Amino acid sequence: MVKVNLEEKFELFTEHWSPKIVGALNGQHVKLAKLKGAFIWHKHDNEDELFFVVKGSLTMEFRNKVVVVDENEFLIVPKGVEHRPVADKEVLVMLFEPATTINTGNVKGEMTKENLDTI
Amino acid sequence: MVKVNLEEKFELFTEHWSPKIVGALNGQHVKLAKLKGAFIWHKHDNEDELFFVVKGSLTMEFRNKVVVVDENEFLIVPKGVEHRPVADKEVLVMLFEPATTINTGNVKGEMTKENLDTI
Repeated sequence: MVKVNLEEKFELFTEHWSPKIVGALNGQHVKLAKLKGAFIWHKHDNEDELFFVVKGSLTMEFRNKVVVVDENEFLIVPKGVEHRPVADKEVLVMLFEPATTINTGNVKGEMTKENLDTI
Repeated sequence: MVKVNLEEKFELFTEHWSPKIVGALNGQHVKLAKLKGAFIWHKHDNEDELFFVVKGSLTMEFRNKVVVVDENEFLIVPKGVEHRPVADKEVLVMLFEPATTINTGNVKGEMTKENLDTI
């Protein structure tokens, strides 16, 4: 019975684009991340991803459209769909996704985070 | 790319203890529910459940303790653990759990909701 307070967890880290695990259930992870600037284009071949915006306004670019996700809104990005998160100002998000999910999906590089910390 | 605004979805229903599906990913459902009063004791033999409190204060009773979950907090109830949600005042929650999850778990009765609406 793990209770998690989002505000308290967000105070524990400052880096951007570095998701932290705050919960695990049914093979899925709940992660918190701070986003600022533009991420890279990528897709996840096997995982759908949910982005819930806790604070700020997240712009999700797709190849054929752009979706702005505001506070208390969430967006589900289906597997296989290329996307690029962009945060003009810092955005705090909660993610729900399979424990197998790598942040940069099919594109490995300097923004790739593996072996995420649990906080 | 389904974007969901929690406030708009909560305006679409009034009944208590009747979860609505607002998202699906990786075999899991995202549900919204309005809770008021005391639910029944039950457990889920095969599913962990996540309760995220959007508005209000949820009391989760376990056989050996009580956990109060406030706004912007979530609680994960592991499979097999008996629990009883209690809401002295109305509470709005977002649930994240496998699509197979029945609200009353192992206890079928008048509070059991099957074939949930997607809103």
